[in-house]
Amino acid sequence: MPSSAPIDVELLIEARWILPMSDGLPTLEHHAIAIDKGRLLGPWPITEAANHVVARRLMPLHQHALLPGLINAHNHAGMTLMRGYADDLPLMTWLEEHIWPAEAAHVNPDFVAAGTRLACLEMLRSGTTTFADMYLAPEAVAPVVEQAGMRVQLCTPLIDFPTPWARSFDEGLMLTEALAERYGNHPRISLALGPHAPYTVGDDSLTKLNDARQRLDLPVQMHVHETADEVSRGLAEHGRRPLRRLYEAKLLDERFQAVHMTQIDDADLALLEETGASVIHCPQSNLKLASGFCPVARLKQSGIRVALGTDGAASNNDLDMFDEMKTAALLAKGVSGDAAALPAMQALAMATRDGAGVLGMGDRRGQLTEGFDADLIAVDLDAFNTLPVHHPASALVYALDSRQVSHVWVAGEILLENGKPSRLDGQAIKQEAWHYQRIMARHQNQA
Amino acid sequence: MPSSAPIDVELLIEARWILPMSDGLPTLEHHAIAIDKGRLLGPWPITEAANHVVARRLMPLHQHALLPGLINAHNHAGMTLMRGYADDLPLMTWLEEHIWPAEAAHVNPDFVAAGTRLACLEMLRSGTTTFADMYLAPEAVAPVVEQAGMRVQLCTPLIDFPTPWARSFDEGLMLTEALAERYGNHPRISLALGPHAPYTVGDDSLTKLNDARQRLDLPVQMHVHETADEVSRGLAEHGRRPLRRLYEAKLLDERFQAVHMTQIDDADLALLEETGASVIHCPQSNLKLASGFCPVARLKQSGIRVALGTDGAASNNDLDMFDEMKTAALLAKGVSGDAAALPAMQALAMATRDGAGVLGMGDRRGQLTEGFDADLIAVDLDAFNTLPVHHPASALVYALDSRQVSHVWVAGEILLENGKPSRLDGQAIKQEAWHYQRIMARHQNQA
Repeated sequence: MPSSAPIDVELLIEARWILPMSDGLPTLEHHAIAIDKGRLLGPWPITEAANHVVARRLMPLHQHALLPGLINAHNHAGMTLMRGYADDLPLMTWLEEHIWPAEAAHVNPDFVAAGTRLACLEMLRSGTTTFADMYLAPEAVAPVVEQAGMRVQLCTPLIDFPTPWARSFDEGLMLTEALAERYGNHPRISLALGPHAPYTVGDDSLTKLNDARQRLDLPVQMHVHETADEVSRGLAEHGRRPLRRLYEAKLLDERFQAVHMTQIDDADLALLEETGASVIHCPQSNLKLASGFCPVARLKQSGIRVALGTDGAASNNDLDMFDEMKTAALLAKGVSGDAAALPAMQALAMATRDGAGVLGMGDRRGQLTEGFDADLIAVDLDAFNTLPVHHPASALVYALDSRQVSHVWVAGEILLENGKPSRLDGQAIKQEAWHYQRIMARHQNQA
Repeated sequence: MPSSAPIDVELLIEARWILPMSDGLPTLEHHAIAIDKGRLLGPWPITEAANHVVARRLMPLHQHALLPGLINAHNHAGMTLMRGYADDLPLMTWLEEHIWPAEAAHVNPDFVAAGTRLACLEMLRSGTTTFADMYLAPEAVAPVVEQAGMRVQLCTPLIDFPTPWARSFDEGLMLTEALAERYGNHPRISLALGPHAPYTVGDDSLTKLNDARQRLDLPVQMHVHETADEVSRGLAEHGRRPLRRLYEAKLLDERFQAVHMTQIDDADLALLEETGASVIHCPQSNLKLASGFCPVARLKQSGIRVALGTDGAASNNDLDMFDEMKTAALLAKGVSGDAAALPAMQALAMATRDGAGVLGMGDRRGQLTEGFDADLIAVDLDAFNTLPVHHPASALVYALDSRQVSHVWVAGEILLENGKPSRLDGQAIKQEAWHYQRIMARHQNQA
């Protein structure tokens, strides 16, 4: 019995299973967890919860698993309107003949806002509470995410040529600084510098980038070693592998987020280990664009932090982190030749605790632990495709249909309840998606 | 205008899209197709359907795609109760320390029937109308499939040691003959010989198998070249690769279904080409057990028929053919290094038309063509995760959540309507799954 009297809380959730994703805490059965003022209290065995809290609302979820809200560490949410627009094509054909012309014709802040709205709904519906985004017009993304009630790390798109967002790398840095001032203290929006890739950012820009990240105190997210071709071109042009070049530009540290990393040799691994830089693994996008295989099992054995991302809907084509976890776990086994590689619980950790760590929020999110932010989801495991549930982590990673996500909370607020979004207007967002489909089809037919 | 008067039919379905999966027929938009006496008529443009048929019932599905019912060409449905029972383990540990002891302790005809009921519900819910099954107690499987209203190719389990089903290979052949007599003319159940694998079937048994398949006029489905280890052991023991050994035993022909084939050299490819034998690709199981990569793109370039299967729920862990199509398409690109490999439409063909061909039913199923059996499904594409729909085949393969399958018909009978099964009792089947979970957990805790 606790020594103090039970305290009043807003909500107590009783669950069949809780996966705290905290070190040393196993999967809990028949436990409850409380939410109050955006934070978590507990968990306790259901039978003991009354010793700790008196809840104004009780939610019994007796066939559900509770786990931390999923963290999608790499996305281009505005591209969601280009989902399935051009598939089954080699990377450069896809980019040069389809994606870039479509962006030139259609992408503006309204398009980005509409794509991001659709992306937010899809992500909430499948259990994602936080995402890292890297796309044009981040100013248009931020209000959508605020409206959606989710969390985002906005990575500003920095590149050595003019885009619809910025005329130059320098202007991109200025715009980033303005965004950082505006959102510096936002409870749900954080900023990062998002230089596109080593092959589109020259040495001068890397120097400016390093100045800016120190001055603004921001993390950096960058596509690195996405393909073998990128590495061999980097070697030819700069005499060293791109990761080494970033290291020499002093960019690699604990706040550097390297997306993709399908090409990793011993020297790359040593640089990641030495600097504490993280890797963001996007297995479905890497497969779909035939980019190569990130050796996740080897990275994890070396103690390197690995988060999981869907990448954009134009190269995946969904934003479903449960689907991504399954692919990550299966692919790690296939690539390493070891069926024991990346067990279900590790895949869940990549999408929760490790994702929070990589995005610099590991002290408040990614675990169901007392005092952490109440970002969590409930998943109904009583379904034809998950029964019988011998081990809930296996059911979640290997057999889940993400529509089994029934409830989503961010900062204690319920954003999905019994599968229905509470803040966003699903019908209006569907109509908007159809509208853009018609516009893009008309344009494509005229081209 | 047709020369004859419109004929009476049971049902006319109007769809936003129809994917006939027939050679030369593209995806059709705003078309209708009719069902009468278990067969299909049409398709026609919606505006012209009234010239052809007068329907007693009209079903408007104006945000749906219609496609042939999916064909899961390799499963062990009875194992569904072992879903997630032992994951993330090397193949032999998994088999010897978990699966075989669990089978010894629990598997009997009731267990197999219960597992198959759950499997049938999951498969119907996700759009599968026909499956090939290979498990103990096929006598217990057949009545469940009859009750479910689905189609099955029952592959009888033949192996050189005693099983709960047969004391010997010879007894297995006798039991197969009895099943063939019983189900020889069944409209929805067909038989195949299911020898386990080259490494568990000796040369004498291969000779008997060849006699039996000719005498009974049955196809053969067999696990072949599942792992590199199997091939090297076969070489050591028999002086040739297992596929070559099957060829010399005269087993390879158009009715031979080789499951897995992760190891294929030029000589293997030539044998498949020469004999017309088919391959059944189970990408998720191959990944999960770290078995290797079947070179699907190369097989298809050589004109070899490739069907798609989930394998059993103990090594996948779901029976979701949409999920399997996505993995097959992504993995083919990753393995071949070609982002254009296995486009969405080819993945759909593997799960429909090609699957029907491999199972010897290509003249009646796997396409939406006049006169074919009315085995078809409707999929609602108006969802956050599939919108906007620029190309329905891409939406179906790369972005679908299989719960978007709204309707399933087999032989013209509706087995799933608005997501609800019509014949099977979902609640009772869920209770049954929980029952077996408790039994197996108690046994595991006592062991």
